[in-house]
Amino acid sequence: MVNQPENRKWQLLSSEYLHREPWLTVAHNAYRLPDGRVAPDYYILEYPDWVNVIARTAEGLFLLISQYRPGLDATCFELVAGVCDRDDTAPLASAQRELLEETGFGGGSWRELMSISANASTTNNLTHCFVAEGVHRIADHQDLDATEDIQVHLLTVDEVRELLCSNAIKQATHLAPLWRYFAENSLL
Amino acid sequence: MVNQPENRKWQLLSSEYLHREPWLTVAHNAYRLPDGRVAPDYYILEYPDWVNVIARTAEGLFLLISQYRPGLDATCFELVAGVCDRDDTAPLASAQRELLEETGFGGGSWRELMSISANASTTNNLTHCFVAEGVHRIADHQDLDATEDIQVHLLTVDEVRELLCSNAIKQATHLAPLWRYFAENSLL
Repeated sequence: MVNQPENRKWQLLSSEYLHREPWLTVAHNAYRLPDGRVAPDYYILEYPDWVNVIARTAEGLFLLISQYRPGLDATCFELVAGVCDRDDTAPLASAQRELLEETGFGGGSWRELMSISANASTTNNLTHCFVAEGVHRIADHQDLDATEDIQVHLLTVDEVRELLCSNAIKQATHLAPLWRYFAENSLL
Repeated sequence: MVNQPENRKWQLLSSEYLHREPWLTVAHNAYRLPDGRVAPDYYILEYPDWVNVIARTAEGLFLLISQYRPGLDATCFELVAGVCDRDDTAPLASAQRELLEETGFGGGSWRELMSISANASTTNNLTHCFVAEGVHRIADHQDLDATEDIQVHLLTVDEVRELLCSNAIKQATHLAPLWRYFAENSLL
């Protein structure tokens, strides 16, 4: 067993919101480190938790999406993913809702694979990563948010392996569960 | 071969900086989607590129660190990681500099494993992930930044596997290369 790392918690000295808008909430914090040094300008981005899902049909096909991403200025292959809404009862419900909205697929057997952070230093939320096996089409159309424009792809394991090995998938919160899934299921 | 996804680029309608400080640069952008819809409030976080490294000694030990992370409010195991400084000639040089500063280790054989995004929708930078095999101690002390407080750990492959499988590592940009490295080297 690996020992827990020594707790080196910083003391929060002050905190004020710089922005509190739906898509950008930033806190400007000051901290004192354990040895007395002060970090006067530390910015924390606050978000609700996020979810994503490795969804496979009964035939073993992977349900991926592609969409334009303004941060990278590129149209990228990704997992189905989204935000935990206030009305969702749990992250599992959020992931199932996102899969249905973005692809029309549902059903199957679900489990949480891991929960991870996009940036542990500056973001306060977790991303809950699910695996859904045996999903099938249960709606005949997408139900997208106001600024979503999403293409759906059904890919074989060979095709997803090719995307992974050629660095065609860029999103770290999607790559961590995909590489874990490939490692644990000896798909490489 | 998987076909490239259809390019669904959004048209940038306007862009203005909300903040331009060393640790927080935010652009407030408006875009037009391919079907004409407008996204009026889209925030892009601008950062220099980041680096991290899976560093192993000649004996195969993994060089990990732990530090307090205000976003998650937890002291976490992580890879050595950092920011590409203006004076660095390339991401490789940044990663080698960070390894030396944070641990005192250097040397060995280096390669880039992948380049990924912490959040392709809202951050404009990449994280370059390196593997360094055969590193050894070349300085007898750390050379830390003003707000760094970093513990160094030399862990066996069994210990790192335990950290991965027990979800003790949270940072997605570190988990993606670690799980890829474990998958490609059959270490699971």
